[in-house]
Amino acid sequence: MRLARHIRRRTDAVRSFSAPTMPVAKRHDWLSTLEDADVANLNARCSKIIEGADAKPYNRDWMDKCEGKARIVAQPATTEEVSAVLAYCNEKRLAVTTQGGKTGLVGGSVPVHDEVILSTTRLNTIEGLDKDTGVVTCGAGVVLETLDAYLREHDFVAPLDLGAAGTCTIGGNLATNAGGVRFVRYGSLRGACVGLEFVKADGTVVDCARTSLRKDNTGYALPQLLIGSEGTLGVITKCCIACPSLSPFVNVAWLACNSFDEVRKVLTTARSTLGEILSAVEFLDRGALDATLRAHPDIEDPLETDAPFRVLVETAGCDATHDAAKLERFLEAIDVEDGCVAPTTSAMNALWTLREGVSDAMTSRGFVYKYDVSLPPSTLYDLVEKTTERLEHLDVDVAGYGHVGDANLHLNVCDVTGYREEVHALLEPWVYEEVARSRGSISAEHGVGQCKPEYLHLNKSVEAMDLMGSLKKVMDPHLILNPYKVLPASVL
Amino acid sequence: MRLARHIRRRTDAVRSFSAPTMPVAKRHDWLSTLEDADVANLNARCSKIIEGADAKPYNRDWMDKCEGKARIVAQPATTEEVSAVLAYCNEKRLAVTTQGGKTGLVGGSVPVHDEVILSTTRLNTIEGLDKDTGVVTCGAGVVLETLDAYLREHDFVAPLDLGAAGTCTIGGNLATNAGGVRFVRYGSLRGACVGLEFVKADGTVVDCARTSLRKDNTGYALPQLLIGSEGTLGVITKCCIACPSLSPFVNVAWLACNSFDEVRKVLTTARSTLGEILSAVEFLDRGALDATLRAHPDIEDPLETDAPFRVLVETAGCDATHDAAKLERFLEAIDVEDGCVAPTTSAMNALWTLREGVSDAMTSRGFVYKYDVSLPPSTLYDLVEKTTERLEHLDVDVAGYGHVGDANLHLNVCDVTGYREEVHALLEPWVYEEVARSRGSISAEHGVGQCKPEYLHLNKSVEAMDLMGSLKKVMDPHLILNPYKVLPASVL
Repeated sequence: MRLARHIRRRTDAVRSFSAPTMPVAKRHDWLSTLEDADVANLNARCSKIIEGADAKPYNRDWMDKCEGKARIVAQPATTEEVSAVLAYCNEKRLAVTTQGGKTGLVGGSVPVHDEVILSTTRLNTIEGLDKDTGVVTCGAGVVLETLDAYLREHDFVAPLDLGAAGTCTIGGNLATNAGGVRFVRYGSLRGACVGLEFVKADGTVVDCARTSLRKDNTGYALPQLLIGSEGTLGVITKCCIACPSLSPFVNVAWLACNSFDEVRKVLTTARSTLGEILSAVEFLDRGALDATLRAHPDIEDPLETDAPFRVLVETAGCDATHDAAKLERFLEAIDVEDGCVAPTTSAMNALWTLREGVSDAMTSRGFVYKYDVSLPPSTLYDLVEKTTERLEHLDVDVAGYGHVGDANLHLNVCDVTGYREEVHALLEPWVYEEVARSRGSISAEHGVGQCKPEYLHLNKSVEAMDLMGSLKKVMDPHLILNPYKVLPASVL
Repeated sequence: MRLARHIRRRTDAVRSFSAPTMPVAKRHDWLSTLEDADVANLNARCSKIIEGADAKPYNRDWMDKCEGKARIVAQPATTEEVSAVLAYCNEKRLAVTTQGGKTGLVGGSVPVHDEVILSTTRLNTIEGLDKDTGVVTCGAGVVLETLDAYLREHDFVAPLDLGAAGTCTIGGNLATNAGGVRFVRYGSLRGACVGLEFVKADGTVVDCARTSLRKDNTGYALPQLLIGSEGTLGVITKCCIACPSLSPFVNVAWLACNSFDEVRKVLTTARSTLGEILSAVEFLDRGALDATLRAHPDIEDPLETDAPFRVLVETAGCDATHDAAKLERFLEAIDVEDGCVAPTTSAMNALWTLREGVSDAMTSRGFVYKYDVSLPPSTLYDLVEKTTERLEHLDVDVAGYGHVGDANLHLNVCDVTGYREEVHALLEPWVYEEVARSRGSISAEHGVGQCKPEYLHLNKSVEAMDLMGSLKKVMDPHLILNPYKVLPASVL
């Protein structure tokens, strides 16, 4: 049974090579600049305002790639305070960037210029769980791991889990429609959210959390519009999440595969033999494995083989004997180089650490170009191979890993010599164009943030982007909410 | 194993008492009236136009409560034809009501006045299934049962199932965010829809189906806005649905309970003992049971007891032995009056027919006031008891049944003497107000249609409704799409 994992908190790791900040969009000239009088006014409306040097850590993103120049961080304790801050900023044309746990990877939660940071971390009350329905109601600032621990006490679990669980907030998860490792079992967070309270740019509180039951078809799905909009349409303050029952018995298998085709066959066999107890199917290639093993010298790969892929298959069920029998049948049915089942909880944790540790391992070693894409499984790994080939002459490390059960690849290119324009130019827009050509998504689960608005057109039609622009202007007519993010300037 | 059921098709049953049509909203004076020249023009743009007497059946809803006066039904065969019809109607200010299988229960898919009917039933191509991901792509007009049969051939299933499966279309399911009997297992259709193509009021085709993978976080969730908007924001033409793997082994238990508290305990025990194989928890009270037994003289209730509740518990799993063992444990753990497990597929079908036959059984017997609400399980059945008490002096039949696993109650009041204003006045708005007082939803899964716009405010705040109105005006500035539905006139 796995109740805790090793790496659950994003750390601001000491990086070998400091990254140059990204080139940023030009500041919108219609936005005002914060004056001392504004700070005084916001102090009167919000119970906590962080200023000066204390505001600095809120400006720099976890990836160490994006840095804003916000002078203040507003940390409201209530929805009313959020409303008061936004109403003021909207009136004064002051831009606002909402921030949760700041674990995003596309620069969505840090300012680009001098936007006011609105941190939701004090909206951290868990209001309660309806044990009949499994719906939990809580503030946007509740940390995912805290929420999950609370739910487990009552035999439920959060419908999502990800490496940053110890730091990220449920509000940030919703704002980015975060995916993670339970997606293959429980589907999208979007599907689990049954109620939302949010505040519009002008300070209007929109209460769509009056009913907190699983079924409610009264009118348009306003919460769904907010989910995944990355703080550009409103600020999420409260949510109602339908949570699955806890499946208390957990097993983890660790397999070595000789090809990505073998990885795909593992997935198909897992679906048919493990059926409803399948809870995660993750993969790492050799590059990812080497990086994570190097970063975790205390953990050994239990499989002594040079096979180029590892697959982590997790089951979660309500009957230990049945689950073990299904796992046995799965192991008999697959044809792989080698494999094992974690014999203890700590062995499970170690395997999960290897998988979830890849991202940190890459980032702490050099400058990393990170891509989060979904691709048709039949051609998913081709992108890693093509990237390796394309950069062969440049002495960089290419790694592919991710949620193979959801057709979600994380492609990382690590350069221990630091950022090089030459590498960047070979990767972008090429990676995104390759993905779009295969009808994949250029952002599977990490969102668009400030890194990808100019590539949105690769996945979305002109008509779809125009409509997004129209909706943005209805919800935020002065365009103060998280500017330079998600949508390209051309549709505004 | 249950592969087919008895009642899968809505029939226009001969009703004992014809119902008066509902009082309807006043016709919007800004809308044009269809002229002969318009019909000629639409004939040039759309390969099939139904006129005159042939259009009549499309005007009257399945409930026999609502009837429009559309002169024509446009039945486009392609998205381009849908676009051409809408562009013309938008330019001429002709209102349009989109119609799928016409099985809705709130008058959403029939015109209120003389709106042009746009029938999607010819958009019925299943484009294909990606067997790696389980995502199926198909036209909006594909009948749910047809889609499910196609998926089963490939070891997947549709993520939803409902009594009208043989008639309703997947486009209509999406437009109404249909719930049904698999919701407890697979969640909302909203969560399963990973891509959508739709046409805006002005004929613009919005293609959000370029990627058809489970994860895609590129921009705002336009498909989600369409889902559940009941044809008022656009016309859904194509969809990509992520489908669960088939769980081939099915069992059905049928239990008799002495109180609704016992029913609730069955649900809790089912969750803990059946865990991940639980696929439906449905209930019927005595009124519902009597009605369905009367309508199906060929089916006997296998439990010879007067206990006032029946609960149908279905499991679906991938291992017959494990599933049987879990079912055994479940049966041992519950404390109910009586119970049995269906020994054969036909016995299972018979039990499902009793459950799914309630709605038809009530409707064919007299005039039925139907309510579809969700309520906190602890007080869910109170509404049925209060209704019975309230109408005690009026000699009507009150029945409660539904998806107890989703806290979704169907409350039916059947009057064999036909419609009576006196009954109606005692039921509405009282039922809706009672539900709202308990923080339940006045429309759990059936939508708002033309029956409930004036009650929307009971569940949604003024701010939420105003925002819905703003979105409507952005998407459909001339308000031609399905007028008089979903939103109250006050927000437009």
